[in-house]
Amino acid sequence: MVDKPTGETTEVGSFWKNLHRLKLFDYNHERIPAEPSFFLASFSRQKEECFIIKDRETFFTPAQRSQIVWKILTRTGFDEKARDKPGVHQTGIRRLLNDKTFSAAFPLHDGPYDEDDFNGEPNDRRLLYTEWAHFGNWYKKQPLWLIRRYFGDKVGLYFAWLGFYTAMLIPASVVGILCFLFGVVTVGTDYNTPSREICNETVGGKTIMCPLCGKCDLWQLQDSCTFSKLTYFFDNPATVFFAIFMAFWATSFLEFWKRKHAVISWEWDLHNYEVEEEPRPEFEAAVTTFRINPVTQTAEPYLSFWSKALRMVIVSSLVFLLLFIVAFVVVGIIIYRLVMMSLLYTPRDSTVQDKTEASDTRIEFFQDNAKIITSVTAAIINLVIVVFLHNRVYYNVAIWLTNSEYPRTQTEYEDSFTFKMFLFQFINYYSKMSNWCRRIKYSSAGDPDAPGFLTRWEQDYNLKKADQLAFETYLRLITHFYTCEQSDGHLWASIMLALIFYSAAVIQYGFVTLFVAAFPLAPFFALLNNVVEIRLDAYKWITQLRRPLAERVEDIGAWYGILQGITYTAVVTNAFVIAYTSDIIPRLVYKYTNEHGTLEGYIKNSLSVYPTNRYNYTNQQKFKDNATEICYYRGYYEQPKDNDTAPFQPTYKYYHIQAARLAFVAVFEHLAFALTGVMAFAIPDVPREISVQIQREKLLATEALYESDLAR
Amino acid sequence: MVDKPTGETTEVGSFWKNLHRLKLFDYNHERIPAEPSFFLASFSRQKEECFIIKDRETFFTPAQRSQIVWKILTRTGFDEKARDKPGVHQTGIRRLLNDKTFSAAFPLHDGPYDEDDFNGEPNDRRLLYTEWAHFGNWYKKQPLWLIRRYFGDKVGLYFAWLGFYTAMLIPASVVGILCFLFGVVTVGTDYNTPSREICNETVGGKTIMCPLCGKCDLWQLQDSCTFSKLTYFFDNPATVFFAIFMAFWATSFLEFWKRKHAVISWEWDLHNYEVEEEPRPEFEAAVTTFRINPVTQTAEPYLSFWSKALRMVIVSSLVFLLLFIVAFVVVGIIIYRLVMMSLLYTPRDSTVQDKTEASDTRIEFFQDNAKIITSVTAAIINLVIVVFLHNRVYYNVAIWLTNSEYPRTQTEYEDSFTFKMFLFQFINYYSKMSNWCRRIKYSSAGDPDAPGFLTRWEQDYNLKKADQLAFETYLRLITHFYTCEQSDGHLWASIMLALIFYSAAVIQYGFVTLFVAAFPLAPFFALLNNVVEIRLDAYKWITQLRRPLAERVEDIGAWYGILQGITYTAVVTNAFVIAYTSDIIPRLVYKYTNEHGTLEGYIKNSLSVYPTNRYNYTNQQKFKDNATEICYYRGYYEQPKDNDTAPFQPTYKYYHIQAARLAFVAVFEHLAFALTGVMAFAIPDVPREISVQIQREKLLATEALYESDLAR
Repeated sequence: MVDKPTGETTEVGSFWKNLHRLKLFDYNHERIPAEPSFFLASFSRQKEECFIIKDRETFFTPAQRSQIVWKILTRTGFDEKARDKPGVHQTGIRRLLNDKTFSAAFPLHDGPYDEDDFNGEPNDRRLLYTEWAHFGNWYKKQPLWLIRRYFGDKVGLYFAWLGFYTAMLIPASVVGILCFLFGVVTVGTDYNTPSREICNETVGGKTIMCPLCGKCDLWQLQDSCTFSKLTYFFDNPATVFFAIFMAFWATSFLEFWKRKHAVISWEWDLHNYEVEEEPRPEFEAAVTTFRINPVTQTAEPYLSFWSKALRMVIVSSLVFLLLFIVAFVVVGIIIYRLVMMSLLYTPRDSTVQDKTEASDTRIEFFQDNAKIITSVTAAIINLVIVVFLHNRVYYNVAIWLTNSEYPRTQTEYEDSFTFKMFLFQFINYYSKMSNWCRRIKYSSAGDPDAPGFLTRWEQDYNLKKADQLAFETYLRLITHFYTCEQSDGHLWASIMLALIFYSAAVIQYGFVTLFVAAFPLAPFFALLNNVVEIRLDAYKWITQLRRPLAERVEDIGAWYGILQGITYTAVVTNAFVIAYTSDIIPRLVYKYTNEHGTLEGYIKNSLSVYPTNRYNYTNQQKFKDNATEICYYRGYYEQPKDNDTAPFQPTYKYYHIQAARLAFVAVFEHLAFALTGVMAFAIPDVPREISVQIQREKLLATEALYESDLAR
Repeated sequence: MVDKPTGETTEVGSFWKNLHRLKLFDYNHERIPAEPSFFLASFSRQKEECFIIKDRETFFTPAQRSQIVWKILTRTGFDEKARDKPGVHQTGIRRLLNDKTFSAAFPLHDGPYDEDDFNGEPNDRRLLYTEWAHFGNWYKKQPLWLIRRYFGDKVGLYFAWLGFYTAMLIPASVVGILCFLFGVVTVGTDYNTPSREICNETVGGKTIMCPLCGKCDLWQLQDSCTFSKLTYFFDNPATVFFAIFMAFWATSFLEFWKRKHAVISWEWDLHNYEVEEEPRPEFEAAVTTFRINPVTQTAEPYLSFWSKALRMVIVSSLVFLLLFIVAFVVVGIIIYRLVMMSLLYTPRDSTVQDKTEASDTRIEFFQDNAKIITSVTAAIINLVIVVFLHNRVYYNVAIWLTNSEYPRTQTEYEDSFTFKMFLFQFINYYSKMSNWCRRIKYSSAGDPDAPGFLTRWEQDYNLKKADQLAFETYLRLITHFYTCEQSDGHLWASIMLALIFYSAAVIQYGFVTLFVAAFPLAPFFALLNNVVEIRLDAYKWITQLRRPLAERVEDIGAWYGILQGITYTAVVTNAFVIAYTSDIIPRLVYKYTNEHGTLEGYIKNSLSVYPTNRYNYTNQQKFKDNATEICYYRGYYEQPKDNDTAPFQPTYKYYHIQAARLAFVAVFEHLAFALTGVMAFAIPDVPREISVQIQREKLLATEALYESDLAR
């Protein structure tokens, strides 16, 4: 109702603008002007004279026009004859889409993106293409208001969020690289005494290690020299600092996004949408119980509290069941590998001696190729299950479950659906990730609890290859995991749009925060990826995809809650990753319990003894043709005595280190949660400038109200 | 502006009202009618016709009238001559109070509380006295709206909160009593095998324990039979359950208070006060920098961000320094006792043999009375410091610090002051409490780390007496700690009112939640105390104290944040109390690591051995005139060998139990925080009925606005 341009907008962030005088990072203001700022109000045709209308053609933005058309389409009847019949709703484009009468409905693009309009003026699509989607602009800010004008609030908010996330990754990357460099620089110093001892002739050269698999040979500790140095790059004292830093980073990410969102929400007038939002047509059609809305005093379809609660309970239990199945599949594949390996690797003992030669040869063949056979079959099973579960089952089950919840509005529907889909994906991806994470650390630095079943299998991996593979998987996950999903035919459904784009970034956020203690370079790779991804996404939206239906949203919906959940979880996972997979705690315990107070002798101290006469093969009792009576393995166990029923008794050092690990977890978590809690409390949710603006608008509105009241 | 009675109010909580059809717990509705409900709006003399005014005398409540008078008084000039001089503010009652021209300013009570008015109608004070302050009403609801009408929002809100807290204590008391009863009932069963073994002739009767102090005798484990049973009442498996339950209880307390507050805030129209609130006169007088308020576009005194930040940093560091001093004093007294005890108790060795007889006798005297001397001097020091710090220093320092922060409004001032005072009191009371808590558990069930310096001192207490004393202190703290403060002459200052009343209850809340694992009956005693306290407070306010100045508030201010902080801390403290002071973890470890899977033999397992030939006195090497070579003490240590430099080496069991304790802390905290987090998320902050009412009011206002707009 009020139409004065609010000049104060330009004050917002003036401090930063002064810093960025260079304008290097700004988009080209000659082609795309700065965002015009007006006081916005709901349009009403009766009060047309109150609005600034320069041109009736362009008064509504393209996004708004497509929204208006869509509203009209959803309310247009298509069967003149059925109109009189009671109870039959023959209205709306959605119904026709569901009936497959039409295969899709979407707004058209403004014009060609690869040439200017005939009058030489570029259309919005062309402008976005040259100034935003082009990869040459990778270092520039995004023209968010133009994106919003063209694609609507939802897509605009997505790119605002992605840009913000990418910018926030810069400090994390810098600190991560510094931590990695700290490892590189100090690899030869006293910080890394254990590596020096491993590479040393007198310690590493004289320590004969136990065989790593059923048929393997004894080996020299010195052989793992290079690998122990490589491990140090990722697992050094700076890692603890970095994990704490990332807890802070994640909290500030959430807090600053709240502020950023408050600014966007004020500039784009996103608030109050959810209150105004109308029920979904499906909800109106499906729900047959009515009530008088206590607010508007009109009748409306309504689900009673108990009916809703019952639905929620059933749906939640189904979701948990499914999550359980998903987790079970992931664990199942691990177990399958374990069982296969152990079956194929079991050393032939005396009981099979009487089998025929032929079967023996076949067994030999399987044993020789056990690794390949197991890997290939497991990979195939994995692939089938992932493709099947992921592309077919998850989506359909989530849709079905969400439908049977009868969410009232589109926002509720999307939040509920998003949350379910994310849970499925989360279990799927992170269980693999944590598995890898455990494996790399275990095999390099941790303590394989005993040279028993699990450990033999774990260490059987050709370590370097496994790491390479894992690393590649990791990168592929970060950069390309979503590409396979984009072939999905549901792209017109906005719900999938939001899901596909946010979920890639949010899962990446999870990788960056949850296991950052295991790989400090993760934020840097995520940054590289996102810089590319923004422009790649933009290119796709502008040139390759149908133009999506513009939609109004209030915020990023369920994703904020998910990000919050990940942030809390990250503190816990990082505490455990450092405590249990890194070598830091055992080293510290050793350092502060021995007399000389240094790490010297740590390696010898961390090894346990095993008598070689328990092995079946002769090569396992000799090293370089010298018979050895004992071999070493990592862990804190008593040397087994003859006729011992329980061979691997932990020593007091084992319990001491366990206690120290748990103490570290407790201290780390309390510290991180307390400090981030204080930080979250200290950073106001709404920037001062915006809260002042909002108050001012309220005051003006109140004054206008008083004046109109007095004028009566 | 709208004046229709909102009939829907009665629907609020209709469910509960149906349950309470008995009306037993309601106040007497014949004497005090139910709260009348109107749509409230800021009064404006121009629009008098819009308000329902039955009687101009009673249109404003007594509280509002006293507020109006106070506003007038604070703005009345008292020096006619000075009025023309620029820069001299000779206005306001506050200035006169500060100058001691007047000694106090407060509203008068309505009339006598002990007889009806001359016309037979009771005045509000009399009504409150008979229907609320009388102890016979202890089981009834409080007539909150009448309290508010008489005393104003602030006092009304306090009693609403206290009543709510008391009601919430009922379930906690019931569960606490059940847990205690579980202990009483199962004291003779298999749950308490350790006690049975202690009382047993073959185990407890044959175990000779090491002396508990420098000059004490050897003793029999059986002697502690009764005490071990008593301990079991408070430290049994139900305690863990109760600690988890209390974590939930505390979270629901906060969440339900939010809902309750939403109801009260809506019924009493408390919102929006802080936005309207005017700066304190002191702020206006002290701050000389001005700015144009960006909202109202008028000039106002203003502290720049950096100036405020600087003040905050300085004040916070001073507060931390003071907290440090307070904590240091508490620890200091403990250290003083320790040093005194050890000095006086040191057994005479050969080097003092050559001293004179006289000095020897004197030393003997001191040694014999060491306990009394130490206790008395420590108590005196403690008393002096507490009285001095508490009644003089804290208050003045907090006032001074808050003043130098220049808070803008009265609400900000009170929040800041409250927070500081609470921190001081918190450190003071809880450090003592946790000390006691540690002591009682230690002496009864925990492991005195080694029979060394600290332990000897700890166990030197005559246990039963110490516990009696501690228990009495505890009860006194709960029930009467604030009485000494009420003699303070500042009662007219509302800030002290709020502080004194809330802080007693909040510190009690702390006792109820923080150390509940140590004493499950705490909620019950708190409940008893609060039932008395409500009526006692009421009696004081009605009959003994000056009537306080009515004040508007929006909520309970800084106290909510403090309660939240206590609730989070409680999860952590309870985890540690259970893990470190209770016997549960060592018992569980024993139960699941031995072969037979029961607690049999636990007592013997938890004792360590010490050779008696290391003691100086002959009575410490003989028990009942039989020489014994070894004695036992609680703990997991190796038996010291001859010429051992480090006599008390922990065994692997020690580390195993430490690891189990920390694992318990981790599991307990993660579980409690995750579940309470989900609960806090699931319970909406505003009850449905109220949010509907608020929306409805908004809608009506919007419609009225549209209509008035159209009418133009």
